[in-house]
Amino acid sequence: MIKQTPFKVFIVLLTCLASGAAVSQTRIEIPFPDIGEYKTVTADLHMHTVFSDGKVWPTVRVKEAWRNGLDIISITDHLEYLPYKDDVLPKFNRPYEIARSEADKMGLMLIHGAEITRDEPHGHFNAIFLSDCLPLDTPNQKDAVKAAFDQGAFLWWNHPEWKRKDGKAWCEIQQEYLDLGWMHGLEVINGNSYYVNAHQWALDHNLTLMANTDVHDPIDEVYDYASGEHRTMTLIFAKEPTQEAVKEALLQRRTVAFGMNMLIGREEWLRPLIEKSIVVENPDIRLAGKTPAYVALRNGCAASFDLKLEEHTGGITATENLSVPAGKTVAMRVQGDGNTPQGAAPVELTYAVTNALLAPGTPLKIKFALNASFSQ
Amino acid sequence: MIKQTPFKVFIVLLTCLASGAAVSQTRIEIPFPDIGEYKTVTADLHMHTVFSDGKVWPTVRVKEAWRNGLDIISITDHLEYLPYKDDVLPKFNRPYEIARSEADKMGLMLIHGAEITRDEPHGHFNAIFLSDCLPLDTPNQKDAVKAAFDQGAFLWWNHPEWKRKDGKAWCEIQQEYLDLGWMHGLEVINGNSYYVNAHQWALDHNLTLMANTDVHDPIDEVYDYASGEHRTMTLIFAKEPTQEAVKEALLQRRTVAFGMNMLIGREEWLRPLIEKSIVVENPDIRLAGKTPAYVALRNGCAASFDLKLEEHTGGITATENLSVPAGKTVAMRVQGDGNTPQGAAPVELTYAVTNALLAPGTPLKIKFALNASFSQ
Amino acid sequence: MIKQTPFKVFIVLLTCLASGAAVSQTRIEIPFPDIGEYKTVTADLHMHTVFSDGKVWPTVRVKEAWRNGLDIISITDHLEYLPYKDDVLPKFNRPYEIARSEADKMGLMLIHGAEITRDEPHGHFNAIFLSDCLPLDTPNQKDAVKAAFDQGAFLWWNHPEWKRKDGKAWCEIQQEYLDLGWMHGLEVINGNSYYVNAHQWALDHNLTLMANTDVHDPIDEVYDYASGEHRTMTLIFAKEPTQEAVKEALLQRRTVAFGMNMLIGREEWLRPLIEKSIVVENPDIRLAGKTPAYVALRNGCAASFDLKLEEHTGGITATENLSVPAGKTVAMRVQGDGNTPQGAAPVELTYAVTNALLAPGTPLKIKFALNASFSQ
Amino acid sequence: MIKQTPFKVFIVLLTCLASGAAVSQTRIEIPFPDIGEYKTVTADLHMHTVFSDGKVWPTVRVKEAWRNGLDIISITDHLEYLPYKDDVLPKFNRPYEIARSEADKMGLMLIHGAEITRDEPHGHFNAIFLSDCLPLDTPNQKDAVKAAFDQGAFLWWNHPEWKRKDGKAWCEIQQEYLDLGWMHGLEVINGNSYYVNAHQWALDHNLTLMANTDVHDPIDEVYDYASGEHRTMTLIFAKEPTQEAVKEALLQRRTVAFGMNMLIGREEWLRPLIEKSIVVENPDIRLAGKTPAYVALRNGCAASFDLKLEEHTGGITATENLSVPAGKTVAMRVQGDGNTPQGAAPVELTYAVTNALLAPGTPLKIKFALNASFSQ
Repeated sequence: MIKQTPFKVFIVLLTCLASGAAVSQTRIEIPFPDIGEYKTVTADLHMHTVFSDGKVWPTVRVKEAWRNGLDIISITDHLEYLPYKDDVLPKFNRPYEIARSEADKMGLMLIHGAEITRDEPHGHFNAIFLSDCLPLDTPNQKDAVKAAFDQGAFLWWNHPEWKRKDGKAWCEIQQEYLDLGWMHGLEVINGNSYYVNAHQWALDHNLTLMANTDVHDPIDEVYDYASGEHRTMTLIFAKEPTQEAVKEALLQRRTVAFGMNMLIGREEWLRPLIEKSIVVENPDIRLAGKTPAYVALRNGCAASFDLKLEEHTGGITATENLSVPAGKTVAMRVQGDGNTPQGAAPVELTYAVTNALLAPGTPLKIKFALNASFSQ
Repeated sequence: MIKQTPFKVFIVLLTCLASGAAVSQTRIEIPFPDIGEYKTVTADLHMHTVFSDGKVWPTVRVKEAWRNGLDIISITDHLEYLPYKDDVLPKFNRPYEIARSEADKMGLMLIHGAEITRDEPHGHFNAIFLSDCLPLDTPNQKDAVKAAFDQGAFLWWNHPEWKRKDGKAWCEIQQEYLDLGWMHGLEVINGNSYYVNAHQWALDHNLTLMANTDVHDPIDEVYDYASGEHRTMTLIFAKEPTQEAVKEALLQRRTVAFGMNMLIGREEWLRPLIEKSIVVENPDIRLAGKTPAYVALRNGCAASFDLKLEEHTGGITATENLSVPAGKTVAMRVQGDGNTPQGAAPVELTYAVTNALLAPGTPLKIKFALNASFSQ
Repeated sequence: MIKQTPFKVFIVLLTCLASGAAVSQTRIEIPFPDIGEYKTVTADLHMHTVFSDGKVWPTVRVKEAWRNGLDIISITDHLEYLPYKDDVLPKFNRPYEIARSEADKMGLMLIHGAEITRDEPHGHFNAIFLSDCLPLDTPNQKDAVKAAFDQGAFLWWNHPEWKRKDGKAWCEIQQEYLDLGWMHGLEVINGNSYYVNAHQWALDHNLTLMANTDVHDPIDEVYDYASGEHRTMTLIFAKEPTQEAVKEALLQRRTVAFGMNMLIGREEWLRPLIEKSIVVENPDIRLAGKTPAYVALRNGCAASFDLKLEEHTGGITATENLSVPAGKTVAMRVQGDGNTPQGAAPVELTYAVTNALLAPGTPLKIKFALNASFSQ
Repeated sequence: MIKQTPFKVFIVLLTCLASGAAVSQTRIEIPFPDIGEYKTVTADLHMHTVFSDGKVWPTVRVKEAWRNGLDIISITDHLEYLPYKDDVLPKFNRPYEIARSEADKMGLMLIHGAEITRDEPHGHFNAIFLSDCLPLDTPNQKDAVKAAFDQGAFLWWNHPEWKRKDGKAWCEIQQEYLDLGWMHGLEVINGNSYYVNAHQWALDHNLTLMANTDVHDPIDEVYDYASGEHRTMTLIFAKEPTQEAVKEALLQRRTVAFGMNMLIGREEWLRPLIEKSIVVENPDIRLAGKTPAYVALRNGCAASFDLKLEEHTGGITATENLSVPAGKTVAMRVQGDGNTPQGAAPVELTYAVTNALLAPGTPLKIKFALNASFSQ
């Protein structure tokens, strides 16, 4: 080889970013497009601290959320389950009070919340937008839910299928709360669990789709950010980044649940979210005989997509299964059948986004419209 | 290729291997902002294949560049140094011819080029925008350079300090070529070497700043993409993404050299590139006494920045040394001195971007203007 | 916080290993235990260069293999399929000759080989331990195989199911070669494809199990080493690290195929390989009532294991599904049923290693013997 | 915890997430060789929880240490600095009591400890092997240190240079404690700070070299395990893995400090530690003229080494600067001068291990003895 060892190597000191400071003070992006007039904000509205059975001090939840790129959190410690109460004094508003100055400093929206934690069939309820947790500390669960409702809370049923094996499901108490207007949403994803039946209940009863971590441990023990994983979160489409606007969006069911790299939402929000995320960079292609051409698909959002070819029109075929990683571009192979008459023609490919669900087992389907120029 | 797609793939659930296909067919982004009317395109204009002393087939260079997010490459095999000539027939236009259909398929701009490779003091010259390499195959180096010039080539001096220890430097031959208009640029970064003296020569003689890999091996043996490293490249600010426009931009010196996470450029281009890349997300801050506030700096570009505080005005201090990783946000700590009169006041922080150089040893300085609201 | 910012930070320059040199000149380990008197060596015996339809120069294959931790390779360019023959002169022994000095320098064993490449039903055959490839360049495939056999070659059928859709399978020609002693093995894994029918044929006809990459591109375009993936390879249990001993081991079928994190082998070799790789660090456990205890399993080898609980004896249960990553330790949860009489008792857990196959669909089962001390 | 295992998990095939369980329940190895009769154990003996100013519950410290591969920890909450005391009741033995059952379950050695936290010039002292923290809660710092000593504690001075700028250094109080036998060691590394003066004091006064994290936040906010970083720790050379043996080793100064990929120790321990870690795989080399040969150096330990050539004998030169990453092998280039008479001869290369310090600025030097066979 004519050129082997450069004689002068300039060492850039500052590219070596392994220092502790860098790890803890860097915030990642969670890129998702805004939709229409709405701003897309990211929220984790279910988590715990040492004030119930969590393992960290409340300020940790703020710093974690900031680093993880979230816009909004709510600390929702159990009101009833207090295993550390001999060491940590039970004061239900303290997690919020302690976390608040840290949240203000970092510009993170912190919503006051709590978890009402009762045995089946009641299950666990989260209440947020509270002014005071103390009135929720009642012997009767229904009184607690009513107290939250009376404060104007947004309420939802947590991990609805958890501990509900053997046919126990949507019960009278849930129906009652629904009828009273005391239950606005339910979690279709909690941590790393997707609740397929709850997903259907949410659609049947017109409830807001929620996804939260319910994290108890330090967040980095649960989510592998180094490999690109995101924590579970709810995408909320809000008019502006205020608590009032977020509440309005939640009540109007303008959410998409995002967890385990699945997106779960109503078509009204899920379709534009994904269609704005995937860009066809070169829709004009030349197809000579059966020689393949490549169409570059760029995915600008934080979710990776798994596409499965469903339909192809106009004498072409294309890659059957295509993974489009977050923030990257992939080459979709398009191939003519060799029999199409010479000339320009529009062609269309329909893919199912297998990790984007409109309903249990029903993936969103998207179309790529291309302008093909056929020749021999 | 005789063997393309195995018909039977067994899926191992628990191990989740990134499949070979995914590795090779995914393109990363190299986000840099456009500047004014110019589009920022990325180019590596110096590389080798088995047609001189490189280790790969020409199509590999196209696929590598596509995966690495580049817009433009030129394969510049040596005309004179042909160690494999007993096995690979010396045909100077072949690398371009072979690579071209692959480049067309992937939408990559491939510029026809060659390296004129002679001993000191001539050194090595790259010529691109050639129509035919054969006329450059001359006994006399000057004839070769002239032949390239006559084809309308853009010409630059490669790795100017390589093998030039002990005082040998800018020589008569370089001056002659400069005077003849036969040398338009020089490499300030070649692979992982920064040439500090050459950097000064480029400024003294008004030459285009170039940065290229000069890669001989497969690219992944040299650059560690898994850790976020980018290959060395020249950022070019072109009116449009055509060969003519790229040539015009190069001749007009509208470039920034990018390698080893350093950015080297003239202030006219380097300043807007960096000022558009770093966004202050919350310029309005409250400073109560000496309590620190945090300002979020978001870096939207492909380079990580190392900032060093140079000046601070208006009764505040801020983080001394700050690393702002590519694509991430960091919190800059701002603190009042506790003596500033209550009320609102503009404050300004000046940082040196220590890995962005205007001249050898001269980093670019940028200012962050904040609106501080002081209280006790 | 009482202690926030250490005032003195010592920067260790040399830990920043992102330099190009480091990427290309570092060899990883592929830890697998030796078995009995045999040394476990790692081999990839099927790969291509620009001398047939590969994309790299022969020395690249040596450097890649050294970096990837392999002990043995064979470059097996096609004798018949030469798409670059207008540029690269067809000389069948050249890849071996060119690679040899690099292999000697790096201490890598290079075995002389070639691929005999014919249409179905013959398929593709690899022949290694050749002295000269030229006699294999014959019009008739059978003559080529015979010529290899006459040189003392070890011969196997490559990717046996490739292009054999629609019921075409084990054919007369394979039976004939088997009867003649001209076919010693077959590939059960080729690149990222596992051939489940071929696996059964290998067992039925007592053939050596082979796994190879068949790599054409630069290796880093196919295998994701940054995420811990290994290239496909054959583990060979040889008396000593010589070509003679490797050939003897291959002829005696002392191999385990390793690819896509699957291990495929005969029980005689697969069982000790895995049983020596997984160490129970604390077999003595205390089980008080139903309180769980933890048993640490350390996996010292290069494969990650996926364990599925099959049987549990003595009044205990344990983690159902357990992933034991390469080089790491995991905690297996063991729990008593609460009814076992107080006192010490041996207990046993049987797990299927779902990614270690004795036959198609038949995972190896291993037992962990623990000493439990039961109490209330 | 009230919520443990969700009963329904939906598996997303194409995204392959490392599940939360896998993240939190996998233990890495910290490979270091044993030395002579001593077993090398790894310890972090300085850390905090919510019972003083730390941010996590005591059990988190145990789980973190287990995952990080440590053998031994001590939780050493401040006795005097209790910012959370309005919420967390000050009970000095509680962190130990709470963490103990988790430590027993995971097989981690937990040593009872505390931090005696006073202003300068006293500084902060750690005391471990305590039976009861309460007697250490005294108004006078000297009484607290004496109370610890009376319980048989091992005592050391934490981060000795912290807040000691401007000449304040080894003070009367330290001398007094040294004379009384109340100070056995000092921290030369605390978190990501190396205390160069303290290093010299430790040598001057014959004190045990300690390295600890002093971690307050969740460990993953400070150390980047994904990039291969280890937390700061003390390597202890103990006769057996018992608390008594660890105490004896600490009192006998059998330690090496390990942090920021630096190893700091006395030659008696540092030399064998490194010499056993780096193995020359092929000491017999052939040197034909000036043609380079390669010697493979395998580094079996958890630290990466930075080698700088200091001396070369017998007519050879070798790579000047060599990085040998943890767990990997690198190729050292050796080259004859072309003038050495033909024949076999022993040659020797001396390298400084620049990140292994015997004293401030004094790296350990190691020799590689090779058998060279010279020819023309």
